[in-house]
Amino acid sequence: MVKTTLGEIPVEACYGPEHMRGDAPPLPGQFPYTRGIHPSMYRERLWTMRQFSGFATPEETNQRYRYLLSQGQSGLSVAFDLPTLMGCDPDDPAALGEVGKCGASIASLADMETLFDQIPLGEVSVSMTINSPAAVLWAMYLVAGEKQGVSWDSLNGTLQNDILKEYIAQKEYLYPPKPSVRLVTDVIEYAARHVPRYNPVSISGYHIREAGSTAVQELAFTLRDGIEYVEWTLERGLPADSFAPRLSFFFNAHNDFFEEIAKYRAARKIWAETMRGRFGAKDERSLKLRFHAQTAGCSLTWQQPYNNVVRTAIQALAAVLGGTQSLHTNSLDEAYALPSEEAVTIALRTQQIIAHESGVTSVADPLGGSYYVEALTAEMEERAVSYIRKIDEMGGMISAIERGFPQREIAEASYRYQRGIETGERVIVGVNQFEREEPESIPLLRIDREAEETQVRKVRRLREERDNERVRAALDAIRLAAESKVNTMPQILDAVRVYATVGEICSAFRDVFGGWTESSIL
Amino acid sequence: MVKTTLGEIPVEACYGPEHMRGDAPPLPGQFPYTRGIHPSMYRERLWTMRQFSGFATPEETNQRYRYLLSQGQSGLSVAFDLPTLMGCDPDDPAALGEVGKCGASIASLADMETLFDQIPLGEVSVSMTINSPAAVLWAMYLVAGEKQGVSWDSLNGTLQNDILKEYIAQKEYLYPPKPSVRLVTDVIEYAARHVPRYNPVSISGYHIREAGSTAVQELAFTLRDGIEYVEWTLERGLPADSFAPRLSFFFNAHNDFFEEIAKYRAARKIWAETMRGRFGAKDERSLKLRFHAQTAGCSLTWQQPYNNVVRTAIQALAAVLGGTQSLHTNSLDEAYALPSEEAVTIALRTQQIIAHESGVTSVADPLGGSYYVEALTAEMEERAVSYIRKIDEMGGMISAIERGFPQREIAEASYRYQRGIETGERVIVGVNQFEREEPESIPLLRIDREAEETQVRKVRRLREERDNERVRAALDAIRLAAESKVNTMPQILDAVRVYATVGEICSAFRDVFGGWTESSIL
Repeated sequence: MVKTTLGEIPVEACYGPEHMRGDAPPLPGQFPYTRGIHPSMYRERLWTMRQFSGFATPEETNQRYRYLLSQGQSGLSVAFDLPTLMGCDPDDPAALGEVGKCGASIASLADMETLFDQIPLGEVSVSMTINSPAAVLWAMYLVAGEKQGVSWDSLNGTLQNDILKEYIAQKEYLYPPKPSVRLVTDVIEYAARHVPRYNPVSISGYHIREAGSTAVQELAFTLRDGIEYVEWTLERGLPADSFAPRLSFFFNAHNDFFEEIAKYRAARKIWAETMRGRFGAKDERSLKLRFHAQTAGCSLTWQQPYNNVVRTAIQALAAVLGGTQSLHTNSLDEAYALPSEEAVTIALRTQQIIAHESGVTSVADPLGGSYYVEALTAEMEERAVSYIRKIDEMGGMISAIERGFPQREIAEASYRYQRGIETGERVIVGVNQFEREEPESIPLLRIDREAEETQVRKVRRLREERDNERVRAALDAIRLAAESKVNTMPQILDAVRVYATVGEICSAFRDVFGGWTESSIL
Repeated sequence: MVKTTLGEIPVEACYGPEHMRGDAPPLPGQFPYTRGIHPSMYRERLWTMRQFSGFATPEETNQRYRYLLSQGQSGLSVAFDLPTLMGCDPDDPAALGEVGKCGASIASLADMETLFDQIPLGEVSVSMTINSPAAVLWAMYLVAGEKQGVSWDSLNGTLQNDILKEYIAQKEYLYPPKPSVRLVTDVIEYAARHVPRYNPVSISGYHIREAGSTAVQELAFTLRDGIEYVEWTLERGLPADSFAPRLSFFFNAHNDFFEEIAKYRAARKIWAETMRGRFGAKDERSLKLRFHAQTAGCSLTWQQPYNNVVRTAIQALAAVLGGTQSLHTNSLDEAYALPSEEAVTIALRTQQIIAHESGVTSVADPLGGSYYVEALTAEMEERAVSYIRKIDEMGGMISAIERGFPQREIAEASYRYQRGIETGERVIVGVNQFEREEPESIPLLRIDREAEETQVRKVRRLREERDNERVRAALDAIRLAAESKVNTMPQILDAVRVYATVGEICSAFRDVFGGWTESSIL
């Protein structure tokens, strides 16, 4: 029987020197960085241990952040609730029942200030997972920093701000693709000019993979999204080396140990060659692909939840052996609840054990030269490049999305994967084999409705207390800017400063851009 | 700063083709089997998932075994209690408070029959961890099989029966080294002649490592112990190929991921070359080192016990990538209690997730060719061979032990390791960094005194009910055999059949062999 990787690449029973294509890859730190972007990798600096978290009110999330930092976490990663992600205020009828449920509810600058209360934004790097309203939340973060007395020069962190993968996979978009990508570009441009140490976009394969793609699809579509953003930003007249060093990536760390490692290695090589060959970047920082990784949420099971600790440990080890710059390890209860403090602590300890006990941080790219890993890296590169070429031929990622191409490829892969589970060909421990009868009981963190009521009350009081004349003027200015071709960040910042809410600013944009409905992909 | 492996081998920041010594290693399945003993490894057959377990009475342990088999465990591994391991009956004053505490209490054939009640010994492979009284317990197992109607030809499993590592590390011995090794040899010889599918010795590095040795010491002392047993057995006039295929090994799977993998690879190479070069073995089964691995008990912490799930997962992955034939994954509570059913289930699931979800079983020796792994394998081989030569020069392992050589080497390594923890140079997560204040509470399995009372009652009743004339005669026959040079197995089997106890048989041997006290090694 032919064995394949989880991502359907055929693998042989063993590999030897005859499987090596071409020369040995250059050492870590050398172009095209297949073996890593630093010559001595984690000896210089460990990856950032960054647990994605947020729930209920900004006050409660702030408490969790301070706990995580006290436990040795090295960076923050903000999870927003669904209303915030969809540009709705807490008192919007569409937000009902969702406020603070899967992340923190942030409606205005006031909430953002509370979120980072007593957390020094000049020192702690902050990642924010938000896409359609990314520019708005980023503006709030910048002003919150300002109010802490922190200069924008010293802010560092990452904004997800990758709208293309929303159309491809996660489906959290507000406007049509083109004006959405324009807003992404506004942020990239503004960061390049004013917030030089901040990563204005995290080009994300994570959600593509969670939607059921193969590893190669995750790799190819993500890199092609990156190419799209580079093209749009170049059109603003910025030279590649002025913004490319700050582009960052976000990949999944799924079950197939070696396939994941090969994926990260191939990603670095393709990106370096693309940036140099296609876009003429010269600064080596423009060529080095940096990424955050998160273990695969979709691999977790509600059955036998402690099995998730094992899955996450192995996935995290793959991310580290693949040279990640930053890592979120899922909590064992993440498949069905907000992580409890106990569970996030185990998840963080997983990273610390890999970092401090396993010895794998002593050597850069310790798998380099492995016949299997090198052959798999080359194979994944070849397959991803062929996808990228196909999307180029379609006229780029926006046209490909409009045609439903990446969506369809993922849906088909996902179907084959699910089929494998149903037929039992693919074993999921505790799900279709090694089941147990007793339900496990682990303590769950539940968010009560109180958070929602608090947030609704707060946003209503805010609207009474702020200077609504100035808010109206700021929102009008946003509409005007959106209609023109200027960068909208200055207008967004002005609106944020006078406490315009996320919902109000997003509506102003929607007045100009309109909405978007996906047509059927099949 | 010079980085080293956990076992003090200096490692560079990165490795490339210039670190490869000599040619690429032959493919898996080819001499000297560095890359594994089978060409397609786990595609042919997964490793045996064998959780070491036993506690309280034979009845209770039998229940646990049937549970583990129902959960997908593929082989049994018997843990005996301390009195059994030390050749004491449950009613011996020295046994007080220890009966059934750390393993099952087995005093006679009657207990052994209960232990395997409804477990088909012709199908389930059984490993037994016992050393000084190994021949006695093995005889009980053979007769228990007989009573199930199973022919000795179809019994398969492994007897630990490695007394040399007791003098080196674990210190559970009854007699002086030479007569002890003679008993080991009696079992090897008897198995070769009468129980052909059974592994009569499991040459064990595990306990050497748990005593604080480095990985290289574990490797070297274990292989040198193996050489000692081969020499003794050859002196019986058996050709190497008649018994060597049934010698097996038992290694630790400790924290340093790549060092452990390199250790298993080096072990296979050294053993294959030794068996062929030094002992003239020709059958390739004599050359192929097969081993069981257990994750490192000494690496577990009572602080934050769920961290142990992470440690164990990474260690188990190393054992699998190193090509183990059989694996015990420690339970999270193993650092301070008998594993609860919940905890052993997570440990077993750890193996199943590696086997069925991680994809690592598709390719034999997937790390083969890795510059780092190949260089580390060569380095460990060189260091181990140099230790083996040194012990040869001392006149073999028994003289080395009598001089305290391996004991001293281990004590010094252990001291350096502990020192590293005390100074904080070596981080143990949750112990000297990332501590938490709250004590964790996990359910503990406690053995009450009832088991002890039951076992005492049973052995006393047995002594009343059996034919004591025949027991006395059998014990006399054992003394006579021990004084001569004949193989003692037939006499042991006779004694077991008439229900002589472990304590009685071991005493008979002690009457002839005397006891042993280690002289100070410093």
